[in-house]
Amino acid sequence: MKILLYNPNTTVSMTVGFTPAALNAAGPDTEVIAETAAIGPESIEGYYDEALCVPPMLHRFADLEAEGFDVAIIACFDDTGLDAARSMLSLPVLGLCQSAALIASNVCERVAVVTTMPQSVPPLSRLLGSYLGPERTAGVFAAGIPVLDLEDPSEATRSRLFSSCEKALLEGGADGLILGCAGLSQLASTISERFGVPVIEPIAAAIKMAEATAGLGLRTSKSGGWTAPRPKVRT
Amino acid sequence: MKILLYNPNTTVSMTVGFTPAALNAAGPDTEVIAETAAIGPESIEGYYDEALCVPPMLHRFADLEAEGFDVAIIACFDDTGLDAARSMLSLPVLGLCQSAALIASNVCERVAVVTTMPQSVPPLSRLLGSYLGPERTAGVFAAGIPVLDLEDPSEATRSRLFSSCEKALLEGGADGLILGCAGLSQLASTISERFGVPVIEPIAAAIKMAEATAGLGLRTSKSGGWTAPRPKVRT
Amino acid sequence: MKILLYNPNTTVSMTVGFTPAALNAAGPDTEVIAETAAIGPESIEGYYDEALCVPPMLHRFADLEAEGFDVAIIACFDDTGLDAARSMLSLPVLGLCQSAALIASNVCERVAVVTTMPQSVPPLSRLLGSYLGPERTAGVFAAGIPVLDLEDPSEATRSRLFSSCEKALLEGGADGLILGCAGLSQLASTISERFGVPVIEPIAAAIKMAEATAGLGLRTSKSGGWTAPRPKVRT
Amino acid sequence: MKILLYNPNTTVSMTVGFTPAALNAAGPDTEVIAETAAIGPESIEGYYDEALCVPPMLHRFADLEAEGFDVAIIACFDDTGLDAARSMLSLPVLGLCQSAALIASNVCERVAVVTTMPQSVPPLSRLLGSYLGPERTAGVFAAGIPVLDLEDPSEATRSRLFSSCEKALLEGGADGLILGCAGLSQLASTISERFGVPVIEPIAAAIKMAEATAGLGLRTSKSGGWTAPRPKVRT
Amino acid sequence: MKILLYNPNTTVSMTVGFTPAALNAAGPDTEVIAETAAIGPESIEGYYDEALCVPPMLHRFADLEAEGFDVAIIACFDDTGLDAARSMLSLPVLGLCQSAALIASNVCERVAVVTTMPQSVPPLSRLLGSYLGPERTAGVFAAGIPVLDLEDPSEATRSRLFSSCEKALLEGGADGLILGCAGLSQLASTISERFGVPVIEPIAAAIKMAEATAGLGLRTSKSGGWTAPRPKVRT
Amino acid sequence: MKILLYNPNTTVSMTVGFTPAALNAAGPDTEVIAETAAIGPESIEGYYDEALCVPPMLHRFADLEAEGFDVAIIACFDDTGLDAARSMLSLPVLGLCQSAALIASNVCERVAVVTTMPQSVPPLSRLLGSYLGPERTAGVFAAGIPVLDLEDPSEATRSRLFSSCEKALLEGGADGLILGCAGLSQLASTISERFGVPVIEPIAAAIKMAEATAGLGLRTSKSGGWTAPRPKVRT
Repeated sequence: MKILLYNPNTTVSMTVGFTPAALNAAGPDTEVIAETAAIGPESIEGYYDEALCVPPMLHRFADLEAEGFDVAIIACFDDTGLDAARSMLSLPVLGLCQSAALIASNVCERVAVVTTMPQSVPPLSRLLGSYLGPERTAGVFAAGIPVLDLEDPSEATRSRLFSSCEKALLEGGADGLILGCAGLSQLASTISERFGVPVIEPIAAAIKMAEATAGLGLRTSKSGGWTAPRPKVRT
Repeated sequence: MKILLYNPNTTVSMTVGFTPAALNAAGPDTEVIAETAAIGPESIEGYYDEALCVPPMLHRFADLEAEGFDVAIIACFDDTGLDAARSMLSLPVLGLCQSAALIASNVCERVAVVTTMPQSVPPLSRLLGSYLGPERTAGVFAAGIPVLDLEDPSEATRSRLFSSCEKALLEGGADGLILGCAGLSQLASTISERFGVPVIEPIAAAIKMAEATAGLGLRTSKSGGWTAPRPKVRT
Repeated sequence: MKILLYNPNTTVSMTVGFTPAALNAAGPDTEVIAETAAIGPESIEGYYDEALCVPPMLHRFADLEAEGFDVAIIACFDDTGLDAARSMLSLPVLGLCQSAALIASNVCERVAVVTTMPQSVPPLSRLLGSYLGPERTAGVFAAGIPVLDLEDPSEATRSRLFSSCEKALLEGGADGLILGCAGLSQLASTISERFGVPVIEPIAAAIKMAEATAGLGLRTSKSGGWTAPRPKVRT
Repeated sequence: MKILLYNPNTTVSMTVGFTPAALNAAGPDTEVIAETAAIGPESIEGYYDEALCVPPMLHRFADLEAEGFDVAIIACFDDTGLDAARSMLSLPVLGLCQSAALIASNVCERVAVVTTMPQSVPPLSRLLGSYLGPERTAGVFAAGIPVLDLEDPSEATRSRLFSSCEKALLEGGADGLILGCAGLSQLASTISERFGVPVIEPIAAAIKMAEATAGLGLRTSKSGGWTAPRPKVRT
Repeated sequence: MKILLYNPNTTVSMTVGFTPAALNAAGPDTEVIAETAAIGPESIEGYYDEALCVPPMLHRFADLEAEGFDVAIIACFDDTGLDAARSMLSLPVLGLCQSAALIASNVCERVAVVTTMPQSVPPLSRLLGSYLGPERTAGVFAAGIPVLDLEDPSEATRSRLFSSCEKALLEGGADGLILGCAGLSQLASTISERFGVPVIEPIAAAIKMAEATAGLGLRTSKSGGWTAPRPKVRT
Repeated sequence: MKILLYNPNTTVSMTVGFTPAALNAAGPDTEVIAETAAIGPESIEGYYDEALCVPPMLHRFADLEAEGFDVAIIACFDDTGLDAARSMLSLPVLGLCQSAALIASNVCERVAVVTTMPQSVPPLSRLLGSYLGPERTAGVFAAGIPVLDLEDPSEATRSRLFSSCEKALLEGGADGLILGCAGLSQLASTISERFGVPVIEPIAAAIKMAEATAGLGLRTSKSGGWTAPRPKVRT
């Protein structure tokens, strides 16, 4: 199985940072091709950055089947462009937030997302609620850390993150946590040990979901909102 | 007051088609500048077209305040790019679906959207539910007509449209209708007379909402999900 | 355009207090007639007062069209009697809470209401949720101030109000505020400056919504819950 | 125990019609006093009639405790004025719709309301949803019969009613029915036998709920939305 | 009327503890037979204990009609096995949580449950939401007390309980409380006096609901999810 | 990896029937042990059968870790006993309905369940809604076929099934289908070809989800509703 792990922002070091989690999760017969967006914002924080990175991504995704890919993963926790990519392609396209939320449902009764910046709370709350509904979700909690600070987190950064985790568990009533930013990947086991709850690292979750979905021979539905775009002039 | 009425697709004739509704709705002191996207898809049907038209639109919107605009309207019923544009700008940005839904609330207890293609039903249902919640919405009904067929509708096209309206009222329990596509503008009064219910034409609704919102001196909130994008490299 | 701005309580000084906001919002061709209820409670706090003021209001509204009015505004934030008045009339009837909530949607992603007495929280929460659904609302916050104390607010009164605003933004996650009582009108700009978020003053919002709705030629739906009352004996 | 069964419309024959159901349901130590509104509409169909009958009812309810009543029932299926009456009184006040819905929950998994006129569907849908939430409710179905026609129903009237019941069971997925109008009381056993499901007659349900609630010594909460009205001038 | 009050756990002293509340609530013509499960867990705390006690209970319930019972009450606040028992029987079967929630609706606008152990919060939240929907519920609050400690509560136990009640009222916005554990029965009046709100004791509530439901001649619906089990081999 | 695939009913031929789907889905390093309940009902249709099969299942699950199992699958589409088993165990426990619903989310925007008997509609609707929320679910559709008829389906049985699928797609607005009964496994590819939408076969979906979840090293949360049962007397 051949998986495209596509980082829709342009920061190569971030791709390099989360690729080991992907390779570690992948099965022996799975080939993971990690790519970084050629153009777009250097990180994705909020609706504006989300919108900018989609057309380059769709452009890159146009020939995935011809290139032999079985599934594509959009490696951004905002699941930006997920519906557009699913409309364009028949092979499965997965997002980090959705994959993590779905995997979390197997081991958590009510899961919360811990993320970086407060402006991500509204879009992530909508996503989480849309994927799992109100009964299984315990909210989105922002630590107030810029995404790029996570590449080499200071003690203060870690401390703010831990206190968001604690708030999610005690005030939100969560019994498990999703790390809501690809840059948090390397802290998953630290957090899990510290708080004694399942911690879902989205990159690994998405790889496993990709293997499961494509392994079942499933293809993206083409009969509803993801109907293939009609041929027309698009300049 | 100076309003930008921006058609995010590239079909000039569609802009020409809905501009009279805007001019007719505008007050004597309102200047409406109608523009057509320079690049993008020729019509917007579904998630894929939605995604493609946003970056050109954001590019166009960058200097609206310097150009003296007081408010911008995204003249596409999918409200595509609305959150991204609101993040980027401090002046109010309005969408057709939201404007029509809000205006409809004043004269309808439960409103339905009538639109063109079935693949628009899922995204529009999400939008409508997000704006008004479940208590005031009666669903989205698709007539199965391509957007560009509406420029000069045949008798069969009109008939399919009328039958969707009837379904919305009888089966959906709607007591009013929103025309869910800019191309339907010219049929508003015909439908209202035929079915005896309020029919909201979104272009006119958005102009009136723009005048109301900007007239109150309100500016887009910058403290939540629409926080201004942080400076960063965006190629 | 001729708008009736009807205060359903009997306190003339309150009508006098909010009329400038209405006149200030009204366009040059709009005539605003502010009236105070001839009979009813001197202020409206909770379900009991709400119920008492409706029949006198309906009585007053009976001949509005014959008197040349184009739209009526019920100038009470509880939107008391709104459904009954809409059933009786074909011209648009607007409420303060709904008008403010709808206008707020254009500039806030999640809006909260700040009001006076705690017993108003349950009815206003129902109203707000009914108008906008759960995704766009951030709750109702009561400052614990009797309505009539607002006519000349002390420093302590203002301080309690500010602390409710802060709670709505920080704990409720609101990115904008609606002033949930006609008596708060004069504090709108103070609060907006202090907290740096959009503050919606309901009287002005309702005037603008009235102009927008009636200006579009829309009339209240008569085909659902607001069907005109059947002729019958009503003593 | 002494129960006031108050018909908020002025049609004495309707009170006479449903009183036997009340007397039949009442226990040996229960005294039921059935009263008809002295002033108000002759029947209650929609928001307008609802609003008119409340102040006379509140006026009548003012001294219930002094008169030795233990509980009051508002004998109108719209539960009109229920919140206002609960605000005014400390003794329990019950409504027909709520009582029937609560009793139905004990023997039906998903219950529907069958009522008379279509304009009652929106208010009754709100009520039912508000009392039981979405999981236990199967909708409101209107037979298109004026309330006063039920006093001596023709064969055609019965047939329309039966067909609404069938629709509620087959299309709505209900496994039980509430008769959504006091005038339907006499048809309860006929419908239950015909369709083989529980049929809840609201007058009897309310009497039993009144006995249960007052029998437990419970009194209306005075700490939230039903806080007692503050003393003030009410003309 | 003959009511089976069945304690699905095996602790006889608990049955003995709550029986007086039942006898006190029962009317003069009501016979209450309190029974304790012969086999099962000694107390019911969470999903695991819930599951274990159901088959013995269903076994016990098999011949209730032949034994002359009119209604059965499952005397566990988790309403464990309620759907299964309702499927098996035609006579009404009531649960403590549902009965208390329904009775509470008559005297509280928004009710909260106060319970013992935190692991009960998720199942009870689901139950409460399922019975009343979101508009009438104010959450479930756990005091962190093992069920069996309630048989002779220490001062510390009472203090933790009171502080949960306070949290439900102040933070949850409840205007009434349900005691979410049969073992709390004896503290009902203490809590009601201390906090000045209605306190619903579930054993008494269930007895009154049983009398009301059976007294109306209602039987459990057999047409939906509670259809009688088909004959088959069950070893 | 070692997976227990546990059929909670006692029909060995049903276990034999669905085991090939499991073996076919399992990866090369996965060992699937299929077991049939030793005691319990011969098929599981509705709440009553669900309740009966749980204690024997929990008994069987007690030593799974000592036996070297990495994950357990409850091979019944009602997910019966899922919460109880998750409370008892630390290794992941998966259900068919939840696994299928989660996998479906990757390739369908709105998914429906097609099942056998109408009395399964209420419990399955609750499950589906609980796992995915309202936005991604399109309802549960029953073909009216007893479970055991599926072992060797007649032409009439298939025809009823196909017509339920069609209803789910056209009336429910689904863009993908879940086969809501283990006995339907062998018809998955037939239905997918006939209707051109993704069809999720729950046995295979659960195997893949088991591999994904256990492969990530995740263990069931023990901090919320699934807290391990306290030691106590359980007879």
